[in-house]
Parts: sequence; structure tokens; C-alpha cells
Amino acid sequence: MNCTFGIDIGGTEVKIGKFYDDRLVYKTSIKTNISNHGKNILNDIFDKIDELLADDHLLGIGIGVPGPVVNNFILGAQNLGWGEYDAKAEVLARYPDIKVAILNDANSAALGEMANGGAKKYHSFVFMTLGTGIGGGIVIDGKLIEGVSGSTGEIGHIRVGYDNQRQCTCGLYDCIEQYASATGIVKTAHELRKNHQTILNEVEVTAKTIFDLAKSGDEVAKRVVSLMVERLASAIAAIANTVNPEAIVIGGGVSKAGTFLLDKLQTRFKELAFYSVRNTEFALATLGNDAGIYGTNYRIRMILNDC
Amino acid sequence: MNCTFGIDIGGTEVKIGKFYDDRLVYKTSIKTNISNHGKNILNDIFDKIDELLADDHLLGIGIGVPGPVVNNFILGAQNLGWGEYDAKAEVLARYPDIKVAILNDANSAALGEMANGGAKKYHSFVFMTLGTGIGGGIVIDGKLIEGVSGSTGEIGHIRVGYDNQRQCTCGLYDCIEQYASATGIVKTAHELRKNHQTILNEVEVTAKTIFDLAKSGDEVAKRVVSLMVERLASAIAAIANTVNPEAIVIGGGVSKAGTFLLDKLQTRFKELAFYSVRNTEFALATLGNDAGIYGTNYRIRMILNDC
Repeated sequence: MNCTFGIDIGGTEVKIGKFYDDRLVYKTSIKTNISNHGKNILNDIFDKIDELLADDHLLGIGIGVPGPVVNNFILGAQNLGWGEYDAKAEVLARYPDIKVAILNDANSAALGEMANGGAKKYHSFVFMTLGTGIGGGIVIDGKLIEGVSGSTGEIGHIRVGYDNQRQCTCGLYDCIEQYASATGIVKTAHELRKNHQTILNEVEVTAKTIFDLAKSGDEVAKRVVSLMVERLASAIAAIANTVNPEAIVIGGGVSKAGTFLLDKLQTRFKELAFYSVRNTEFALATLGNDAGIYGTNYRIRMILNDC
Repeated sequence: MNCTFGIDIGGTEVKIGKFYDDRLVYKTSIKTNISNHGKNILNDIFDKIDELLADDHLLGIGIGVPGPVVNNFILGAQNLGWGEYDAKAEVLARYPDIKVAILNDANSAALGEMANGGAKKYHSFVFMTLGTGIGGGIVIDGKLIEGVSGSTGEIGHIRVGYDNQRQCTCGLYDCIEQYASATGIVKTAHELRKNHQTILNEVEVTAKTIFDLAKSGDEVAKRVVSLMVERLASAIAAIANTVNPEAIVIGGGVSKAGTFLLDKLQTRFKELAFYSVRNTEFALATLGNDAGIYGTNYRIRMILNDC
């Protein structure tokens, strides 16, 4: 049978999905070997693909990488030890007759959510991952917008404060990532729990415990969530005022807070966005860590459809 | 000869350009008759077109309007007295065999600058008009992004303050428009000149006098410009972090401050944007009030080329 592969290369593991058309038929992962400037990463993937291919016929491979990509060319992926890198050429050297697509990982997750997940209803949306950091991808009229240096969706670094309160890992101050990522919320919780009666003083402070406590009524935890919502809604308003999408689709670990977070965010967004974009919908991503393999496979299917 | 018309409908006058291909051969304007809910505006334009057509053959008409437009359908243009309005159908009823395009005015100005002005070098850019208010248009890979409710580029309402200092005409607080439009800078000047020795206390305070004085070294005027640059560079960083364009192209009355403003803006932008978008170029719009007619004509030419 004809098959395609959707691959998502992360700093610690590579997720590999084998697909019949849009149907995931096998999913596995291998360790990412970042030694020797990541020189073996692709070969390890090729070996696994050959093993999983069995008697099927390979039509295409899509690969997501943690770094900026423009037109299938990787501008750099520090966590893998890669600088500028034409991974597409390397894949084609091994499999000359197939279709190959290389994408940024947040972008491929956005496509995955559109193909099979929480963005299925939408053609124009901003996908936002709230994890350790904040990343994103932008789809307009069904097409990914990569940006001139592959950096569309660096929305984690929108400034949401003017008093240099928190320095970001990027060197700038008051990036939204410092307030609304898992790391950012935990930071807020540590600040606000001091000298206050809250269960946050008795538990390990994580995004999960913060939201669980906020849901159960802990006043300090509720304040932590409020501060996050205030800043994140502002950043999303800036994004919506700029690209006027149908929807904001939110994924990443923090999105496990679910509609509790989403409803608060949408309510405050409606107050902070320009009137003509207030109807922007809010949705939760549904594919979790599989979004990337669905997305890279989706891209390959689109390329095959165009042929 | 074959000709096309590029029209730009404003609240007080309608600019009309007659083109042979991309060459403007005649330019005029008529008063905008907003009485009776703007019912006569299109007919007045048709009469003028008929007069200017002479023995030429009409291939198409492009029209820019001050309000949100999606796929040639006007969602509303308050200043003209128009609500939802299918102006394209009306133009086709009068001229059945031509091509017609309806665009938002800031969007058509963006296209105009790409076709004949300061954005000629670029395929992906954000056009920003700094006038009485702040508006904009976004072009990605040569294509205008209109947004799901025609509101792409409502970048004047990006929040650049968190202490509710200035309320915007839109009802929100601390929109960039309140700091970097002509109105915004004048507001800052009135605040900062109090109890200070500055020529701003002896002249009519306008965007022009502020920049002229800043250029000649007036300390208070320089502080006014600094505050504007600080906030505007932040808003532009948010935009660039989101859509990662090749360039920011700045037009509108305030842009007459020229490279004096542009250089300061770019310098501060480089400090505030995420590292991977810091190479975003900055350019000045060059067409002034004619950008709209060039842009609507460009759109019509593109449609004719596609046929």
C-alpha cells in the first residue's frame, strides 16, 4: 500500500508516524542523538522508516524541526546541534523518488491541528502553544505563513509590560512568555504566595497545581491565573488586531487547564481587542504531542494532491 | 486605448486616477457627497469616469473605501454613511463587462506602495500609516491579507501601556494610536511642555513643529519623539514577532519626519524585537495621498493579468 511518514524531531526524542493517507497506522519514537552536531539524527530516522515500511510503497516524508525553516531550508536548530542545513536534499539523497517537506515544529503542529485536531473548522487561525515557553504558527486561508526568516509566530516574545519586571531567556524584558508559559505562571505563583495563606505554600508549584487550586477556589492561585489571563489576553489582542484570524487555537501543557482557562481568556480578550476583531473564536488544541506528526504528514499529502 | 480607473473614496473627497496599464495619465478629485447615506457617491464617480473615459475602452475599476472589506464586500464605511454594501454589484450594474475590485483604503495604499512606491522591493511587508490615527495593511508573498472580518492591520489599537494612561477613541486604553499618531504626539507634547522651557510653548503644536524642533535640538521636543519611538518600536516588534515581514513601510503625515524618525525607530526596534526578526527593514512610503489610486489600479491590473 502507499504510505507516508510524518516526523517530529525534538531535542530528546523523534516522533515517527506512518500514515495511510490521513490515517495514522503506526506511531513510535526514537531517541534524538544530538552528539556529533546531530549528524546521525536523519540516518537514525531513515533506518526506522526502512524498518516500518515493510512491503508498503513510500510516497513522501514530512519532517518538523525545532528551529526556523524557510521553503524547506533549515536556518538553524540549536537543540539538535544543527546550523543552516538542507535536510530536504539529504532525505532525497536516500529516497530519490519521494516528496519531502521540512517545517518548523510549531508550524507543523498548527497544520496538524487543522488537519485532524482542534483547528479543523478553521482556515485562518493562530496556533499558540503554552508550554515551558510559548510558540506559535499562523495559517491564513489554509496556508502556513513561514515569514521571511522562518520566524512567524514568535509570539512568545510580544512585550506585555513596560517596567522591565521580568527578563526573558531571549534577553528582552516582559515578554508574554514570562507571564503565560508554564515557567511564567510558576514564577508568578512564587511571587504571590509569599506571606499569604495559600495551599501553594504546601505543594509543589506547577502549572497543574496552580490551575487545580484556582479551580477549587484558592484565592492566591486565582490571582496567579488572573495576572496570566490579563497579559495573555493583551498579547492575543495585539495578534488579532494584526492578522484578524477566525480563531486562536491554544495547545501545549498549560492548555490542559481547558475551558476554565479558555473562557477567562476569551472574556478578557473581548474587552481588550479592537471592536471589529472581538468575534475571534477560541479553541483548544486536541492532538497534544502528536500534532507535529499529523501536521508534517498533512503537508506531504497536500504536496501529493497537487501533483 | 484600453484604460482602467483607480479610485480612493475618502470622507471628504474622492480621488480618481485614470491609468494606461500602470501609468497614471489623469488625476482628479470630486467632493464626497455623504448626504442621504452616501447614496450618490458611486453615481458621482460613474459620471466622472464617463467624462474622463473619452474614446478609451474601459477594462476595470478598482475602488478603495474607508472601512472593512472582505472579498469585495463592504462590511461598513461609517464616514460615507454606508453599512454593509455590495458596491461591486453596483459598479457591474453600470459597467457590465469590466473587472471590478473593492478594497479597504489602507490595504489599497499598501498595494499602491508595492506597485509604485516605497515597498517596490518587497513581497512581504507591513504598511503602517501614521496620520490622525494609525492604520495599516499586510502583504504576504505579494498578496493582501484582508482578515476574516476585513480588519487585518488594525495595528493602531495594539496596547502599549498597562496603566490606563490614555483612552483611545475606540474606547480602549493605551492603544499605540494614542502615542504615535499625529494626535498622540501632540498630546504628549502638551503634557511634557508644561513648566518646561521649550519653543513648544511659543508655537502651534503639530506633528510637524514637534519634529522640526526635535531636529533642531529642543530638549522637550526630543523627549516627545523619544516617547513616541519607544512605544511605536514596541508595537512594531509585536507585529514583526507575529508575521515576520521583510519590511515595515511607513506612510501618513507623520512619516514626513523622514529618516530622522525612521532611523530612531529602527534602532530601538532592533533592541526590542526577537533576535530572529531584527533584520526587518524599514522604509518610507513615497506616494502620499496617491497610494490608494495606485493600489486599486494595481489590483485591477492583477485581475486582468490573471484572465
